[in-house]
Amino acid sequence: MVELIHQHTDSMLALQGYFIRYLQDAFKVPLVIQLTDDEKCMWKNLSVEERQRLARENAKDIVACGFDVSKTFIFSDFDYVGGRSWVQAVEAVETASDRNASAFYKNMVRVAKCVTYNKVVGIFGFTGEDHIGKVSFPPVQAVPSFPSSFPHLFGNDNIRCLIPCAIDQCPLVFTKRTNIRGEWKMSANDPNSAIYVTDSAKEIKNKINRYAFSGGQDSIEKHRKYGANLEVDIPFKYLGFFLDDDKELDHIREEYGSVRMLTGEIKKRRVEVLTDLVERHRRARAAVTDEMVDAFMAVRPFPNILLLVNLCYVCKNNGKKVYLTSGIHFSAVHKLAAITRCTSWGMLKNVIAV
Amino acid sequence: MVELIHQHTDSMLALQGYFIRYLQDAFKVPLVIQLTDDEKCMWKNLSVEERQRLARENAKDIVACGFDVSKTFIFSDFDYVGGRSWVQAVEAVETASDRNASAFYKNMVRVAKCVTYNKVVGIFGFTGEDHIGKVSFPPVQAVPSFPSSFPHLFGNDNIRCLIPCAIDQCPLVFTKRTNIRGEWKMSANDPNSAIYVTDSAKEIKNKINRYAFSGGQDSIEKHRKYGANLEVDIPFKYLGFFLDDDKELDHIREEYGSVRMLTGEIKKRRVEVLTDLVERHRRARAAVTDEMVDAFMAVRPFPNILLLVNLCYVCKNNGKKVYLTSGIHFSAVHKLAAITRCTSWGMLKNVIAV
Repeated sequence: MVELIHQHTDSMLALQGYFIRYLQDAFKVPLVIQLTDDEKCMWKNLSVEERQRLARENAKDIVACGFDVSKTFIFSDFDYVGGRSWVQAVEAVETASDRNASAFYKNMVRVAKCVTYNKVVGIFGFTGEDHIGKVSFPPVQAVPSFPSSFPHLFGNDNIRCLIPCAIDQCPLVFTKRTNIRGEWKMSANDPNSAIYVTDSAKEIKNKINRYAFSGGQDSIEKHRKYGANLEVDIPFKYLGFFLDDDKELDHIREEYGSVRMLTGEIKKRRVEVLTDLVERHRRARAAVTDEMVDAFMAVRPFPNILLLVNLCYVCKNNGKKVYLTSGIHFSAVHKLAAITRCTSWGMLKNVIAV
Repeated sequence: MVELIHQHTDSMLALQGYFIRYLQDAFKVPLVIQLTDDEKCMWKNLSVEERQRLARENAKDIVACGFDVSKTFIFSDFDYVGGRSWVQAVEAVETASDRNASAFYKNMVRVAKCVTYNKVVGIFGFTGEDHIGKVSFPPVQAVPSFPSSFPHLFGNDNIRCLIPCAIDQCPLVFTKRTNIRGEWKMSANDPNSAIYVTDSAKEIKNKINRYAFSGGQDSIEKHRKYGANLEVDIPFKYLGFFLDDDKELDHIREEYGSVRMLTGEIKKRRVEVLTDLVERHRRARAAVTDEMVDAFMAVRPFPNILLLVNLCYVCKNNGKKVYLTSGIHFSAVHKLAAITRCTSWGMLKNVIAV
C-alpha cells in the first residue's frame, strides 16, 4: 500500500485516493470523504486538538489527489458531527440550514439502535476492557453511507452510495476476490509495511526490494521453468494500478508470467513508477493552500447536482443515482459490511453497495 | 414523585424542576437543562421525529416551572450534539461561532475514552444483546457537567457544575442520605408509581391514598402509642418540598411525629397541596408559547454572566463560580458518580459535585 503523506494521520491510502479520483472523473459522481479524527483521538490516545491538526494535514493530501471541488465534500467528524460546519452552512446557503439540522448525528443514533454489543464484538473483537468510545464508533463510520447524512448535498434524494475503499474486495477492481495484500500486510505500527508518500526514493526502493511479497519462484531455475505466480505477486499488482500505460502492463504480464522476466526487474519498474507517483504527489501537495482545503470542507450544495450519472456497477438498481464515499478504512469496510449482514435494518444493506 | 406532564416524555420530575428553580432564584446561577431525546429514541424505540416532538412538549413543561430565561439554556441532544443550534448561534452571536465549534461532541469523545465497557456494564447492567446506542450513551449524559461543553455560555471559564437532580442523594437537601422514595419507587412502566401533572385531582387522591408508603403504624392503637416514623413517611416528605408554609410544616411534624395526627390526615393535606401544584403547573404550561421555548433553547450567551455567585455548597472550592445542570436522570446520577469513581479522569470528579 502507498499511504498518504503523514504516517500518523492514518489517512486514506494513496492508492485509494487516486482510484477514487479516477471514478469521480470517469462517472462525474459526487464524493464525500470522512476524516475520522474522533476515531484516531480515541484509538491512538491523541488529544482532540492534535487530531484536528492532523486531520487538516490529511485533508491537504486528499486535495492533492486532484479531486473536483465542485463535486467533493471533505469533512472531519469533530467538525461535522459536532456542528461547526453548520456555521459555514449558514454563511454559504442560508436556506439549507433547516434541512441540515443534525442529520448526521440522528443517523448515528438510528444505526446504533440496530447493532448489539455482541455483534460488534463478533466483528471487531473488542474486549470488556476496551473503552466505550470504540464500541460506539461503528455508527459514526457507517452513516456517510446514507445520503440523508448530507442534506446540503442530497436533500431527500434516496440515492445509492458506493464505497470503493475496500479495493481488494471491490468487484470494480477485480472480478475475483483476490487478496492484493498478499504477505505484505500494512500496519501503522510497522513503517516498513507501507510506503508513505513522505518516503524518499531510497526508502521506497528499500521497502519494495525487501518487504513486498513476490510471486516469483524460489530460485532463478524454478522461475525460468514455471514463471511467476501473478495472482500473489504484490509488485505486479501494484503496477496494475499505477502504470498508466496499459500496453506496457500487458507486456510485463506476458514476460513475467512466462519465464522471460525476473522479479528484480518487476521490482525495479515498480520502484520507478512509485517514486514518480510520490514525487508528483509531493509537488501537488505543496501547492495545496488553506483556502483550497476550506473550499473542500465547506458545507455547501454542489453545483449541477442533478447531473449525477448511473454507475454500471449499480445497474441492478437501474435508474438510481450514485455518490461515492470514502474515509471508511480498509478493514472497517469488511466489518461494516458484516454489520449489514448481521442486522435486520434493510436500509443499510440497500445503501452499502459493496 | 411528581412527574412533569407527559408521561411518555420521561422529563425531569416536577419536584426536581421546582427545586432547581428555587436554587436558581436563590443563588442567581446559570442553568443548563439537557433534553435527552436521543436516549429516549434509543431506549423506547421511538422514531427520531417523534422524540423530537416530545422533547419540545417537555421543554414547555420545564419552561412552565418559571425558570429565568436570562440564565437558563434548554437544549435537545439531537439539536445540540448534532449542530442545529449552532445555526441559531450564528444568527444570535456571530463572534462566538468559532469558540462554539463542536465542543459538546468533543467532550463526548473525551469522556468515552475514559470509560471501559466493563465499567458501564458494572454500573448499568447492560448485556451483550443490548444495542451499542445504550453503551455509548453515558458520555452524552455526562458532558453537560463540563462548562467547556457550553462555550457560548462559559467561554474558557473552568467553573464548577452542580447537579441537583439526584435530590435524594444531594447534601443540599438532606444532611443525611435518606432515601426519599421509600417503598414508592417511580417507574415509567407503572402509571401508579408516580403522579403526573396530567393527573386529575381524583387520580392524585387515589394514588396517594393507595400507593404512597406511610410511616404511620400498622394500627391506630400503635400509631397513638408510637407516632409516625417521619424518616420513611413519603407523604410527609413530600409536604416538606411542596408546602410553602414552614410553620404549618413544623406543626404537622410535631403533631404527626407524636401521636396526635393520623396518616389519613397527612395524606389529605398532601392531596390538597399536590392538586394545587398540579393545577398551577397546568395553568402555567398553557401559557407557554413556542416563542418562549425558542428563547430558552436559543444558543446565546447569558447577559451578566459575570455576576455568578458562589454557592455555599462548594465553599471548599473557594472562589469558584457555579452553574447548575439538570436532565440527568435520578438513577443516572448515581451511575455517573460511580463512573467518576471508576475512572482516573481527575476532571470528572472535580466537576461533578454530587
